[in-house]
Amino acid sequence: MTLARLRGIVPPVVTPFTSEGDVDVPSLERVTDHLVASGVHGVFVLGSTGEVAYLTDDQRDLVVRTVVRTVAGRVPVLAGAIDLTSARVVEQVRRAVAAGVDAVVATAPVYAINDAAEIEDHFRAVAAASEVPVFAYDIPVRVKVKLGADLLVRLGTEGVLAGVKDSSGDDVGFRRLVAANAAAGSPLTLFTGHEVVVDGMLLLGADGVVPGLANVDAAGYARLWERAEAGDWEGARAEQDRLAALFEIVFQAAGRSGDAAGVGAFKVAMQRQGLIDGATMAFPVRALEGEVAERIEAITRAAGLLGAAEAAAAVL
Amino acid sequence: MTLARLRGIVPPVVTPFTSEGDVDVPSLERVTDHLVASGVHGVFVLGSTGEVAYLTDDQRDLVVRTVVRTVAGRVPVLAGAIDLTSARVVEQVRRAVAAGVDAVVATAPVYAINDAAEIEDHFRAVAAASEVPVFAYDIPVRVKVKLGADLLVRLGTEGVLAGVKDSSGDDVGFRRLVAANAAAGSPLTLFTGHEVVVDGMLLLGADGVVPGLANVDAAGYARLWERAEAGDWEGARAEQDRLAALFEIVFQAAGRSGDAAGVGAFKVAMQRQGLIDGATMAFPVRALEGEVAERIEAITRAAGLLGAAEAAAAVL
Amino acid sequence: MTLARLRGIVPPVVTPFTSEGDVDVPSLERVTDHLVASGVHGVFVLGSTGEVAYLTDDQRDLVVRTVVRTVAGRVPVLAGAIDLTSARVVEQVRRAVAAGVDAVVATAPVYAINDAAEIEDHFRAVAAASEVPVFAYDIPVRVKVKLGADLLVRLGTEGVLAGVKDSSGDDVGFRRLVAANAAAGSPLTLFTGHEVVVDGMLLLGADGVVPGLANVDAAGYARLWERAEAGDWEGARAEQDRLAALFEIVFQAAGRSGDAAGVGAFKVAMQRQGLIDGATMAFPVRALEGEVAERIEAITRAAGLLGAAEAAAAVL
Amino acid sequence: MTLARLRGIVPPVVTPFTSEGDVDVPSLERVTDHLVASGVHGVFVLGSTGEVAYLTDDQRDLVVRTVVRTVAGRVPVLAGAIDLTSARVVEQVRRAVAAGVDAVVATAPVYAINDAAEIEDHFRAVAAASEVPVFAYDIPVRVKVKLGADLLVRLGTEGVLAGVKDSSGDDVGFRRLVAANAAAGSPLTLFTGHEVVVDGMLLLGADGVVPGLANVDAAGYARLWERAEAGDWEGARAEQDRLAALFEIVFQAAGRSGDAAGVGAFKVAMQRQGLIDGATMAFPVRALEGEVAERIEAITRAAGLLGAAEAAAAVL
Repeated sequence: MTLARLRGIVPPVVTPFTSEGDVDVPSLERVTDHLVASGVHGVFVLGSTGEVAYLTDDQRDLVVRTVVRTVAGRVPVLAGAIDLTSARVVEQVRRAVAAGVDAVVATAPVYAINDAAEIEDHFRAVAAASEVPVFAYDIPVRVKVKLGADLLVRLGTEGVLAGVKDSSGDDVGFRRLVAANAAAGSPLTLFTGHEVVVDGMLLLGADGVVPGLANVDAAGYARLWERAEAGDWEGARAEQDRLAALFEIVFQAAGRSGDAAGVGAFKVAMQRQGLIDGATMAFPVRALEGEVAERIEAITRAAGLLGAAEAAAAVL
Repeated sequence: MTLARLRGIVPPVVTPFTSEGDVDVPSLERVTDHLVASGVHGVFVLGSTGEVAYLTDDQRDLVVRTVVRTVAGRVPVLAGAIDLTSARVVEQVRRAVAAGVDAVVATAPVYAINDAAEIEDHFRAVAAASEVPVFAYDIPVRVKVKLGADLLVRLGTEGVLAGVKDSSGDDVGFRRLVAANAAAGSPLTLFTGHEVVVDGMLLLGADGVVPGLANVDAAGYARLWERAEAGDWEGARAEQDRLAALFEIVFQAAGRSGDAAGVGAFKVAMQRQGLIDGATMAFPVRALEGEVAERIEAITRAAGLLGAAEAAAAVL
Repeated sequence: MTLARLRGIVPPVVTPFTSEGDVDVPSLERVTDHLVASGVHGVFVLGSTGEVAYLTDDQRDLVVRTVVRTVAGRVPVLAGAIDLTSARVVEQVRRAVAAGVDAVVATAPVYAINDAAEIEDHFRAVAAASEVPVFAYDIPVRVKVKLGADLLVRLGTEGVLAGVKDSSGDDVGFRRLVAANAAAGSPLTLFTGHEVVVDGMLLLGADGVVPGLANVDAAGYARLWERAEAGDWEGARAEQDRLAALFEIVFQAAGRSGDAAGVGAFKVAMQRQGLIDGATMAFPVRALEGEVAERIEAITRAAGLLGAAEAAAAVL
Repeated sequence: MTLARLRGIVPPVVTPFTSEGDVDVPSLERVTDHLVASGVHGVFVLGSTGEVAYLTDDQRDLVVRTVVRTVAGRVPVLAGAIDLTSARVVEQVRRAVAAGVDAVVATAPVYAINDAAEIEDHFRAVAAASEVPVFAYDIPVRVKVKLGADLLVRLGTEGVLAGVKDSSGDDVGFRRLVAANAAAGSPLTLFTGHEVVVDGMLLLGADGVVPGLANVDAAGYARLWERAEAGDWEGARAEQDRLAALFEIVFQAAGRSGDAAGVGAFKVAMQRQGLIDGATMAFPVRALEGEVAERIEAITRAAGLLGAAEAAAAVL
């Protein structure tokens, strides 16, 4: 599996839970199979969408092992190695590699207050300790740091980083990163994490996307990718517009936390499609219910998912 | 002039200064003529690129009157009405309208600490007092508030706002705004202020763009617009890539303020092309000089501007 | 009037409005007289508490002239000179000086994006154009910039700044400023704007305080000052504790904007004491009413103000 | 050991490292002994000053066991239980309790994006799993959340929280917390983390302080405490002024990260006093050296520490 050439749709897989709060392994197997069957090009476990911050090390291992076993080599499996600082991240990398992932994804340090030089050394240390390629995860809304294009391309050129998952929301910065990477011979594989501007990001040169919403409509993202690959940009835009309308599910839980409203909405829409058994969230986040869940279901139905997908789920 | 149908490239015109710090009227006439001759679809004076915050009321009047006189009805002229709060903004609107502008552009209150309901009332009051259409100017980096899509579309539907200039850098939010506006029957004309993602923004449905960089390369943005209008998205992307490379001029003055590095770079690149006489900035900002200015000149030359544009400027 | 020696309590005077939104001159005269009679050592008009951002230039002139006339030289009058950038601030200074103020208070530029060197030049230009002493107003919650102790003490030593009104909420920074100022021979007069930590700020060396809450209980702050001057720190603490309990009025309007909740609460508590005729706020802010106003009244009564103060007001 | 009555000086102990990056146990024993001998009332390990974010679980265990063994019951030992979210924090609590600490200190979740209700449930879960009292650690500069006084006092009243370490820098908020706690019968023990405003914080009612700078001058903080206890507020202020001048060591490494400049300066000043063998920081932070270290040494000497402390260290 040549990760240097990974391109396309790489969903960040949600972590289903039983009502007791344990990892729901059968549901995780089912959603993993569904994603691969829908035509995605890779899967990313233990990301923010996978509620990685809430999982114990044992739960993380269980998630990774379940997905690696289910994917069975059909596509690459990337795993988040999320912890406070270098030495702790390295331990997460070790565990993920032992569980069989093809690449790991690491952020800058969390809680620590570091400068750019320290962050660069951090990535060097993580990569030096990793037997698989390392992607940088740029997610300032959680890490409170924006990774600079200069730093990323330099680490790409030196072989430290294999790529970047950009969830910064800074599309001007992403275009600068794409340009700087191209000028350097494209050492980095560049993925955007923003699921509603994929058409524009692919047009400007992204190698792919890590769309949380693909948990809800993987086939839609696969179509969007194919149209972009074919140069059918207006077709890509139309598919993206449909997916952007579906993305409104994450704005229904007004007043709830970001994790509850976002991943919580994905889980409700997935549960309604039969992709997972329940919409339980990791403690202390409570699942979306009642009127909010009904609005999410209505939006999902309006996107054309509840008929066909229910049937598809029944077949699996 | 039907502003409701304004589409295309609407550059925010820089304000040239003499070395004594006065508005350089001949240079302002020259750059205005150059922009219109290059095929832009409107001009926007007294924006952030126009250093509006630094200008006295008399200087603002002089800028507006000069540009209105020079444009002479060939394209619409929009003017920023920038002040702290409603009553003061209304006075700015009155002056701009008296000077002959076709529309005004207003932000949410500055310095005041208001909530969404107060901001909505602010826009209602400004529009009620204006004889010309009002655009909302969404620029959180300066105003420290992000205008919500709900508020904007509601004010559009009610006829309060004619459009939005979005300089928020939040492209996910911009797509939501485009979708919500379309669902409401497109009451708002929607412009992005981000000059390096214009291809993607036009693909997703923007009505146009207000690119500061068009002061440096207006013809490039005109070509980008034409390609997008023709559905030649890869041609648009190629032109945008060239312009994005040119935009690197604003990243040369490391350690200088945002206003010095950005508008300062535009002015150096314009001065080198003969579009304005000098690169002087409004007090207390000092012009870019020396090695930084040389790097800006080199980037401008690499973008193919210094040969052809110098010739074009000589003809004017 | 030797401003270099100004010490003590200098309330930022609220601007009362009629129900039509005009400056309520009789109420402004009444509250000004009440403040001076209560033993304050100066008054500060056109500050944030005075809703300066919302006032037109004509309204600002009216406020300054009314207060200067009413104070009649009994204590110094300071005025905020609040506008976007240097040239516009200088015009505000000119108007305030013409109206008779003893000193002006200016912030760093607003809306503009400047660095420390530009901010320093800004203060130099404002001071060069002012016939009265200039205080720097450090209020990052509105201006989005924190003024550094180095810059302030340097400008004090050079005679550019006479003092600082620190509303930054950064008490560690304020102690550093006090220490740096003392080490430089105390060129600056240093006031804190934080009305609930005055005991500690006076203990550490502040020259005085600009407490918005003194509009509601001026006599309380005068007592607090006298106890601190007498070295009765536990007495000062007890008075401050009482005032801090009164300050809870600003936390009653949950969900309302900062300006509505804060200044709005002061106005309700003042209106209940008969110090001003109505609690009207500047457009677009709506006055606090109903249950929120009742809670504010109850807290004011619990602080012992409504009996005695009503009687005092009746005497004026 | 009755933690409910803990009052006084509780330094956050630095974690010394060997030049190879291992925990330097002899140095840690020495500094711990020095702190207790200097008259502090408790010690806090695995805080931000202890570089907790950078330590592996094994290193954390080693630190706690070393300090607990060295303290030998002379004062209480508190330990930070710092990890991303509830389940992981509970595991940290379990380890710290097994190592013998008297109380644990936990933040709100990190990396996760939670609302107030979720944060409240988080603290309930942590406390329910802890055999020792739990303090909330309010440090927004790292956790990016400010804990509200209402939430804290409610959890105190219910017996969930034993106290709060407030490193928020929001002294207005701290006074509100002190007042709300007093009104509820003082269920919480309230410590400030801000080492340069201790006089004012004790005056307003803090139960104690967690001063990182006490690693450098523990005896100074012990004297400050005794003077405040004796009601000698001007004596307390004088001692605090001396300590504030010493605190300038953390501002010497301009351009370095917060962790490097702050904890790095403490370590240099401690090494110069012989309290620890070296100033090595946790990877990827590099120790302060050269001219910066010389300035730190000079400030430490000016504070009167290098003569006496060297002698004291020689005695140990």
